[in-house]
Amino acid sequence: MSSANSLLISVDVNRLTGELTTLAGITEAGPPVVTRVVFSEADLRAREWVKGLCREAGLMIREDAVGNTFVRWEGSEPGLAAVGTGSHIDAIPNAGAYDGAVGVLGGLEAIRALQRVGYRPRRAIELVIFTSEEPTRFGIGCLGSRLMGGVLSAEQALALRDKDGHGLEELRSAAGFAGPLGWVKLAEGHYSAFVELHIEQGPILEREGIDIGVVTHIAAPASLRVVIEGEGGHAGAMLMPVRHDAFCAASELVLALEAAAKATGVIDTVGTVGVCEVFPGAVNSVPSRVRLETDIRDIDGARRDGVIASLKTAAEEIAERRGVRIGFETVNADPPATCEPAIVEAIERAAKVAGRSSQRMVSRAYHDSLFVARFAPVAMIFIPCRGGVSHRPDEYASPEWIAGGVEVLARTLAELASQ
Amino acid sequence: MSSANSLLISVDVNRLTGELTTLAGITEAGPPVVTRVVFSEADLRAREWVKGLCREAGLMIREDAVGNTFVRWEGSEPGLAAVGTGSHIDAIPNAGAYDGAVGVLGGLEAIRALQRVGYRPRRAIELVIFTSEEPTRFGIGCLGSRLMGGVLSAEQALALRDKDGHGLEELRSAAGFAGPLGWVKLAEGHYSAFVELHIEQGPILEREGIDIGVVTHIAAPASLRVVIEGEGGHAGAMLMPVRHDAFCAASELVLALEAAAKATGVIDTVGTVGVCEVFPGAVNSVPSRVRLETDIRDIDGARRDGVIASLKTAAEEIAERRGVRIGFETVNADPPATCEPAIVEAIERAAKVAGRSSQRMVSRAYHDSLFVARFAPVAMIFIPCRGGVSHRPDEYASPEWIAGGVEVLARTLAELASQ
Repeated sequence: MSSANSLLISVDVNRLTGELTTLAGITEAGPPVVTRVVFSEADLRAREWVKGLCREAGLMIREDAVGNTFVRWEGSEPGLAAVGTGSHIDAIPNAGAYDGAVGVLGGLEAIRALQRVGYRPRRAIELVIFTSEEPTRFGIGCLGSRLMGGVLSAEQALALRDKDGHGLEELRSAAGFAGPLGWVKLAEGHYSAFVELHIEQGPILEREGIDIGVVTHIAAPASLRVVIEGEGGHAGAMLMPVRHDAFCAASELVLALEAAAKATGVIDTVGTVGVCEVFPGAVNSVPSRVRLETDIRDIDGARRDGVIASLKTAAEEIAERRGVRIGFETVNADPPATCEPAIVEAIERAAKVAGRSSQRMVSRAYHDSLFVARFAPVAMIFIPCRGGVSHRPDEYASPEWIAGGVEVLARTLAELASQ
Repeated sequence: MSSANSLLISVDVNRLTGELTTLAGITEAGPPVVTRVVFSEADLRAREWVKGLCREAGLMIREDAVGNTFVRWEGSEPGLAAVGTGSHIDAIPNAGAYDGAVGVLGGLEAIRALQRVGYRPRRAIELVIFTSEEPTRFGIGCLGSRLMGGVLSAEQALALRDKDGHGLEELRSAAGFAGPLGWVKLAEGHYSAFVELHIEQGPILEREGIDIGVVTHIAAPASLRVVIEGEGGHAGAMLMPVRHDAFCAASELVLALEAAAKATGVIDTVGTVGVCEVFPGAVNSVPSRVRLETDIRDIDGARRDGVIASLKTAAEEIAERRGVRIGFETVNADPPATCEPAIVEAIERAAKVAGRSSQRMVSRAYHDSLFVARFAPVAMIFIPCRGGVSHRPDEYASPEWIAGGVEVLARTLAELASQ
């Protein structure tokens, strides 16, 4: 441990921010807008480019059946469980340059920084690029890490379809990934520890002037699809008293979720309707069907489930009063994860050695670490992002914040890989 | 007049319903769903098929620069103003087989029925197939009749774009229509009278057991586009108290329009939000922008404008309270049309001779006749449709209802063309 603490680590932040900018330029949209949906041409081009950087650093690369990519720096005792780090490079439509990317390219720079000072890990250090952390394509987030953690079965994964009806099998094959999906699952003991570096995606660190967030819990997200079926008709001729307008019912439901999330009185509860499709979608046609996708989160699983229950109660009342049918499908409702105290403490020690202020906090966003926690001890390192803004083109983390996060990650990996 | 009344007209309703079924099968969707958006491959195929039927009947065909199609049965005095009839064959997504089609194929059958009994018109009878009565593609309804009536200028028409950014110029050229759009405008006096046959798209005729609705007024529709701009962010990390969720604001606006339309206390007021696009449209992203398309109608223009004013007042309050921006764009706000008493009376006489019950009524739906009324005397013949249902695949008019409507149309055309 003392050897890890005494390393004179120097992060090449100019190179790293240049690489983040280059990666952001590999997008389906026009820069600075980042849109990189899994298995899109941009996603595949981004993967190739990142793998090239990893090869330059002399690292070995393995890809599994769903495209999770493992970049390995072999340890002096290859038989030991590895220390993992990593994140994702897929991005939702209209996203920014830092979500996920900081954990992948920052993880690589942490390895390069350790290489430059001549550090040699006892345990292998593995950088993981997870497939489809974002739910954009398949409606379910953390596809790669769910399969890795055995939370999603191969059968469930093969049933996934994107909005155009293309299945996972077809899409992963076209992307060049093959083999049994059941083999993606990793055994307990594959990693002795896993640490993910990520932007906070919230306002706390920047507001309070703290360099490093040390994540102790990852919030429990639930996603529900809602279908409202009413009665369509001509917008001119269908008179108001006889209408069963699916979009009016959906609008009440949107507001009911907002009210239920606020009604817990706890800042940690959030509820969002981010997707809405109105059918048939003509200006002169009364909507007959609406499909919503909702996202409900809390650090307390029971409180989150209470919000879901409130939403369903509201839906029953709306359906009854308006003469529409409302159906719910639970896409996922994952339990929260508790981070490993030993890793949390290792991060805090690393921050202290690096001269960076740190604070324990909760992650409200979904992360692959939530599912890695099913088979390995995990923790996360957060860095500030401007205004707490994420999932937008103006998402931003300063070079100084990034350099701090990468140094703390490098020192943490060094300590964990020396054990 | 006496000669027209004494005609032994026999409508070939088997042939006509067969033709309606064939036309319904020319669709972008799977039958029985009719989707035939203007200038789509299905629309062009349907036009060719209908023109073939017209040629079989020995009629001359002319098409104007926007694709309005004029099918002429020459009169014995070709110098006189013609008598017009007709409707449209384009259909909104997920529509049925009768809206518009009954007026086109029924108009053709009326001409054939008159031909079969040896009637020879003094004035020419022109069957018009209007381009894009439905607003699906360009967001504005009655494109062909607006240009014909000089309500829309060539410049305004050329500025129209569909949702994929394709302009009218590009689309009409690809469909084979050329020439100055300004030439689409017809002069006052082109038609001595114009009569459109259409399904009611409302429940009154069927409910009251009446064969024929004689339209005296066509309601005044207004269409507004609304853009709500809030603030996006990560659905997990953006806490409820700091949100400016564009979709929650939009939901309030949808309910405000519903309430304003109901608040007039008059059955003739209707308000609908039929189109909603949520941006960026990801389940884990707080909506930053929403685009709505609204349709507001009344037979009283001032009352309709009162509903629009209520909507805008509600929008101001919502924008202020939620910290979002709400902008309105008026796509159209057309004045209502009053039908020509002489044609209304001719229809009533024709119904009486045909042994069909009739009732004067108001049209709440948009029709090309609204714009033909700018340059010619108009009236409309409504027939019942089951349950008042329209703009849906289960839209239905019985052969008996259709036969009645076509006979009344034929007799009305014969009377008007003899004058």
